[in-house]
Amino acid sequence: MQFLLEVVEILTNYVRKTFDRSTKVLDFHHPHQLLEGMEGFNLELCDQPESLEQILVDCRDTLKYGVRTGHPRFFNQLSSGLDIIGLAGEWLTSTANTNMFTYEIAPVFVLMEKLTLKKMREIIGWPNGEGDGIFSPGGAISNMYSVMVARYKHYPEVKIKGMAAVPRLVLFTSEHSHYSIKKASAVLGFGTENLILLRTDERGRVIPADLEAKVIDAKQKGFVPMFVNATAGSTVYGAFDPINEIADICEKYNLWLHVDGAWGGGLLMSRKHRHKLDGIERANSVTWNPHKMMGVPLQCSAILVREKGLLQGCNSMCAGYLFQPDKQYDVTYDTGDKAIQCGRHVDIFKFWLMWKSKGTIGFERHIDRCLELSEYLYHKIKNREGYEMVFQGEPQHTNVCFWYIPPSLRLLPDGEEKRQRLHKVAPKIKAMMMECGTTMVGYQPQGEKVNFFRMVVSNAAVTRSDIDFLIDEIERLAQDL
Amino acid sequence: MQFLLEVVEILTNYVRKTFDRSTKVLDFHHPHQLLEGMEGFNLELCDQPESLEQILVDCRDTLKYGVRTGHPRFFNQLSSGLDIIGLAGEWLTSTANTNMFTYEIAPVFVLMEKLTLKKMREIIGWPNGEGDGIFSPGGAISNMYSVMVARYKHYPEVKIKGMAAVPRLVLFTSEHSHYSIKKASAVLGFGTENLILLRTDERGRVIPADLEAKVIDAKQKGFVPMFVNATAGSTVYGAFDPINEIADICEKYNLWLHVDGAWGGGLLMSRKHRHKLDGIERANSVTWNPHKMMGVPLQCSAILVREKGLLQGCNSMCAGYLFQPDKQYDVTYDTGDKAIQCGRHVDIFKFWLMWKSKGTIGFERHIDRCLELSEYLYHKIKNREGYEMVFQGEPQHTNVCFWYIPPSLRLLPDGEEKRQRLHKVAPKIKAMMMECGTTMVGYQPQGEKVNFFRMVVSNAAVTRSDIDFLIDEIERLAQDL
Repeated sequence: MQFLLEVVEILTNYVRKTFDRSTKVLDFHHPHQLLEGMEGFNLELCDQPESLEQILVDCRDTLKYGVRTGHPRFFNQLSSGLDIIGLAGEWLTSTANTNMFTYEIAPVFVLMEKLTLKKMREIIGWPNGEGDGIFSPGGAISNMYSVMVARYKHYPEVKIKGMAAVPRLVLFTSEHSHYSIKKASAVLGFGTENLILLRTDERGRVIPADLEAKVIDAKQKGFVPMFVNATAGSTVYGAFDPINEIADICEKYNLWLHVDGAWGGGLLMSRKHRHKLDGIERANSVTWNPHKMMGVPLQCSAILVREKGLLQGCNSMCAGYLFQPDKQYDVTYDTGDKAIQCGRHVDIFKFWLMWKSKGTIGFERHIDRCLELSEYLYHKIKNREGYEMVFQGEPQHTNVCFWYIPPSLRLLPDGEEKRQRLHKVAPKIKAMMMECGTTMVGYQPQGEKVNFFRMVVSNAAVTRSDIDFLIDEIERLAQDL
Repeated sequence: MQFLLEVVEILTNYVRKTFDRSTKVLDFHHPHQLLEGMEGFNLELCDQPESLEQILVDCRDTLKYGVRTGHPRFFNQLSSGLDIIGLAGEWLTSTANTNMFTYEIAPVFVLMEKLTLKKMREIIGWPNGEGDGIFSPGGAISNMYSVMVARYKHYPEVKIKGMAAVPRLVLFTSEHSHYSIKKASAVLGFGTENLILLRTDERGRVIPADLEAKVIDAKQKGFVPMFVNATAGSTVYGAFDPINEIADICEKYNLWLHVDGAWGGGLLMSRKHRHKLDGIERANSVTWNPHKMMGVPLQCSAILVREKGLLQGCNSMCAGYLFQPDKQYDVTYDTGDKAIQCGRHVDIFKFWLMWKSKGTIGFERHIDRCLELSEYLYHKIKNREGYEMVFQGEPQHTNVCFWYIPPSLRLLPDGEEKRQRLHKVAPKIKAMMMECGTTMVGYQPQGEKVNFFRMVVSNAAVTRSDIDFLIDEIERLAQDL
């Protein structure tokens, strides 16, 4: 117990320093350096036990050589920040060390999940919050659930007979959508070639006419269109597909409409921004990750389904050793037979506790504030020398995508050479950032576009000064490129 | 920060009480009771924030109305116990709040995972610990990985073309195996009817001759046998399938051999018991959950694959925004493209820390001790009045399966009436246990066998006195049945 309190001391120091801007975001080392062993820190496992003193050193070193994802200058991932209430919730969850599969061993958590999912469905706009849902290990699995449930709704016989029993089914999603839809099509046995990619406008939003044309084309080829994914907040551009227009087409052709709001779902909490998801109440299923825009610790992802009973029908195997029908309580509260997992981690408590603590209006404020910071960045750089925006106009989400063009490249004529050189700029700046440990921000190419920075804000600790710092730091690091 | 320390106070009190046998295992309430709201504890979420004082009350109440899975008299699940080092590891993990997909944001954890998986493969017996693996969100997902990887190895075209491109593939597993194999066959598009169940002996172990007969039969019907699951430690009986004999058949017919050691894998750490898994080094893949027999906090499950590159080949989608090839470090350390998830929780640290702290020999001692306690229980009840063993002979794992026959049933002649009445005994005793809150143990029917208790031990805090208590308590509760 004394040991546990010493670990708490290490952890609270870590948390304090994380919010201190004079602390580095990371202390970068290459894999071979860490593998060879830093002074006093050896990753190898042994037959014999180590002393508790050494274990405390190991805890300190693990944090020392890691990355402070809660630091106000860590912008590298959609999930960032370190909410203290959420953290306390996670600590309690680990201490309770239980499993979501039955009410029997997780009565409080199972009910919290049930109530929270209902609240989320109300916010989506489904009548009386009716429907179903489950927390899953991340947005990719939530998206996979949506494809599975759609398949079960249209072809329940697949569960028993497999994909051989059905016609050639095709799925639709945009070029800008998350790769998990493609993963699901491989995993579930559709095949990635049966996932048809939709064209987007310059801002990364699906062109509905392209969806309809491709649905018609697929039908003419004898394929059976079944599922459409609309993205609410794409990973790179933060684009929101026009859900209402897509829903019209889905209704016309009897297609399952899934909205991947893993990143953008949080905007539903904001009266100012939720119009970007107009039409989401027409979706058959929705992915929404509170661990992204809502600042909940990792991980916390929900799949919500409008029709009740489908999750259970799709996944139920009625294992007698776990889901005994003759228990003394109402076993409809057991959640395990809805899941593709057996044991399931308690992801709900931290989220429930944060919601209690902030209230719905607290999440709204957080989201509005992050979007304001992104607007600030956008206005700061859109006409600044050396910057070029990847797409024009105000971002829809906190994603601000831009190239930084170092002085040496500014006078080059547009063309392949400039493209090639520009492609190398973001990786170089990023590498220097990591070596210096001052900040982190993501970059990637997209289609024909060479590597650019994708800035996102989801951490409540970020201020305008951190945005200013990022820009100064990019310019400082890139001066000799 | 003060708030966090107050939560720590609540948690450390909870931990202390959990190990105190005068504390109840649970304070049972029905769902409607908790939903209506206990005094001062309301699960509903509101628009407005709650005070920090109320949040602390909510934390206390969440624990109060939950189940103490670390209590030495909680025998309800394969995962039990509350290891303090493991708990500290989970608290650190939550504080680091990062994601396993890239080395970039989880350098230390990614390397710990890599080294620990290698160590596990060495223990399995694969040459030099070569191969691959990943920690996944539970044994069901690990088993699903095995089927996916087997399919990719035999028919890589499925990834692109889907299940329509392959012949009718069949899978084999025993009647006693975990239901996740059936789930995987539904999810992945094989269909549950293409999962062929194998007969077992009286102890729940696969009969190899039945496997060979069913493989031949399937081939004669024109189906293509592809995958065999052998269970090392079945959920109910704790049975170990004869891996070597199954491996002979798999080699003969070119079938993928998976060993589901979710529950029994831990025995590999024991020089005394690892012979029960003889032949595991011939498997193509292995599921092994340290969160079960090794007492690691939930969750911690590994899928290990003998052939390198298959996980990556099977699941890789090369998302440009996450797995940039032009990073400054060796990107082969990024693990995300091996996974079906995108974000992945850090499950490794608590396990690594426990291994450091106990050493391999510490795990061995823990496992040997749990098995000794089960032997103690077995010998205590096998000839005791009122007990009947579900299968004869010493259990292979810690699972002891038995009926308790209350005095009123003992004189009844064998037959349907006795069966029907006996079927109701375990649920009644279990309900009373939960109402009293004194202990918890699982029950279930199996095939033709009516409800019986399945006792398991995986908690390091259990002593012989707790086993004695369980037996006394069953007899006390059942006296008037």
